[in-house]
Amino acid sequence: MITSKDVARLAGVSQPTVSRALNDHPKVSAATKQKVREAARALGYAPSAVGRALSTGRTTRVGLVVTDLDNQFYSYVIAPMHDELGRLGHELVLVTEADETGPIAERLISLGLAGVVLATTTVDSILPARLQDRGMPFVYFNRVAGVEADAVVVDPSAGVEALARAVADAGHKRAAAIFGPHNTSTGEERERAMRAALEEVGISLSQRDVVHGPFDFESGRRGAHELLGRDGAPSLLICANDLVALGALNAAAELDIDVPGRVSIIGFDDLPPSRWALVQLSTVAYDLEAMSREAARLIVSRVQGDRGAPARRVAFGTTWVPRATVGPSPR
Amino acid sequence: MITSKDVARLAGVSQPTVSRALNDHPKVSAATKQKVREAARALGYAPSAVGRALSTGRTTRVGLVVTDLDNQFYSYVIAPMHDELGRLGHELVLVTEADETGPIAERLISLGLAGVVLATTTVDSILPARLQDRGMPFVYFNRVAGVEADAVVVDPSAGVEALARAVADAGHKRAAAIFGPHNTSTGEERERAMRAALEEVGISLSQRDVVHGPFDFESGRRGAHELLGRDGAPSLLICANDLVALGALNAAAELDIDVPGRVSIIGFDDLPPSRWALVQLSTVAYDLEAMSREAARLIVSRVQGDRGAPARRVAFGTTWVPRATVGPSPR
Repeated sequence: MITSKDVARLAGVSQPTVSRALNDHPKVSAATKQKVREAARALGYAPSAVGRALSTGRTTRVGLVVTDLDNQFYSYVIAPMHDELGRLGHELVLVTEADETGPIAERLISLGLAGVVLATTTVDSILPARLQDRGMPFVYFNRVAGVEADAVVVDPSAGVEALARAVADAGHKRAAAIFGPHNTSTGEERERAMRAALEEVGISLSQRDVVHGPFDFESGRRGAHELLGRDGAPSLLICANDLVALGALNAAAELDIDVPGRVSIIGFDDLPPSRWALVQLSTVAYDLEAMSREAARLIVSRVQGDRGAPARRVAFGTTWVPRATVGPSPR
Repeated sequence: MITSKDVARLAGVSQPTVSRALNDHPKVSAATKQKVREAARALGYAPSAVGRALSTGRTTRVGLVVTDLDNQFYSYVIAPMHDELGRLGHELVLVTEADETGPIAERLISLGLAGVVLATTTVDSILPARLQDRGMPFVYFNRVAGVEADAVVVDPSAGVEALARAVADAGHKRAAAIFGPHNTSTGEERERAMRAALEEVGISLSQRDVVHGPFDFESGRRGAHELLGRDGAPSLLICANDLVALGALNAAAELDIDVPGRVSIIGFDDLPPSRWALVQLSTVAYDLEAMSREAARLIVSRVQGDRGAPARRVAFGTTWVPRATVGPSPR
């Protein structure tokens, strides 16, 4: 097997210079870099992550664990998280947990990951406990579960309270809601905050006007068809997130229901499509990009040293963003 | 260091049984699996990808190389590609090439990847040649470049020809276009196919009504503001892909220009948002999910054996999908 020693000999440089040249170190001259690269190419030498992991005892791969990779929400998380990990010298590996009661903990460990970001763990998941048992560092993303660990979360209260005041001022008396799944901390927490805020301003939310479903477009489309198709449906539809609200807006278009003339629709997340002129969704915003970068920093800092330090929780505040999908109550 | 031998001793099973139990092999009983997992946990044993790579001589990580990870197009590619790779026992690592003239080839090799899928390589990129020099297998995704290699591509002709006939039948005489970048094979090929098809049906495309830009929303928004804001703008706007067309549709909404009353707008890709009731974009469709899966199969089959076999090119056909953004010419 070709080693960096062989490359050093052929290029006429020291062995450490080979590594620095191939890693594009700024202190190595362009001429030396080229000489080393040519020698490496001539010999077919590839410095491998495997070799590096053996010599340093750890890898630089961070796993992002999600259940539903085709949920568009993650496309806005992956780019900044990948970018921040790259800045910190780490790579991003995607892992889905189709069935997280299965051997996912073993799989995560066998992948040789340095640490993982858990983005879809349900509150009853055994995964955090198993990772803790096996000594694999992890960070909760927009979630928390039983085991104490670093977390980046959203604090919905400020945005949700402002939205409740705004819709009460617009004359709305009764709301319908498509909430998230019961077994996620995010779903439960947003539902709790929304119910409290609506109650505070005297807007009623009857049990027959509430459905629950996944945080996706289809859930919103289906839920809105169910809730808005009825006689006497409320003038306000609260959605678990923007994707659900986009599904609901499209259902309204399919049902030929005027938004906001007959029903006002509200999301949560402020994803880029919500700002489109064609959409103009009223929503609750927070800095998702900053949150994705923070998760990357937390996991790398945990991996690189302070494993025994107390768990950190970084909470991102929310604001109410009124746009075209909220109007005065028609009643 | 704890090895599987230690786990086998503590659990009272053979060494191969440890590996099979931790990989959830169906032939191992639930009781044995539990015994092995408990022993592994008690000893803090983690079978690592590093160890496996050393014993087998190769990894199971496939890199997906893109320039602009925040381009929404990739979110529809990543999920099926990840899923198909998983089915074949491989993982997906995301790699961006912000500056592909830089040390990206070395970086790809140093990541210990088994192979890579190149999704954004420009025709003048040196990356394919460098990967070939270093013996790293790769597959072009929706692109080709100078070096002969496996590729999954789209054949635009059938869809584009049908679209040209449809708009000619609707009375359109002059088109404007927002085409893709000159230095990508996809941009060049679609532009060539579109120009030929329009000429065939007698629709003119004047040089002053053509702009070029990246395959993204902002390019469409900016291009449409430039092209549609003029007096005497054509009645038809052809876009390089759906994201560009979505940007153009939003620009039309911002400019209060009726679609399709004053201008008909056409995309390419048929991404899910194009099917929304709020959008209903007329577009050219192909099976992007099947193409993403095919790229995964090609790279794994190349990695696992037939490295010397001739390069394979799998082309996906296109169809014309008329929706609400195309109407009769107003003139």
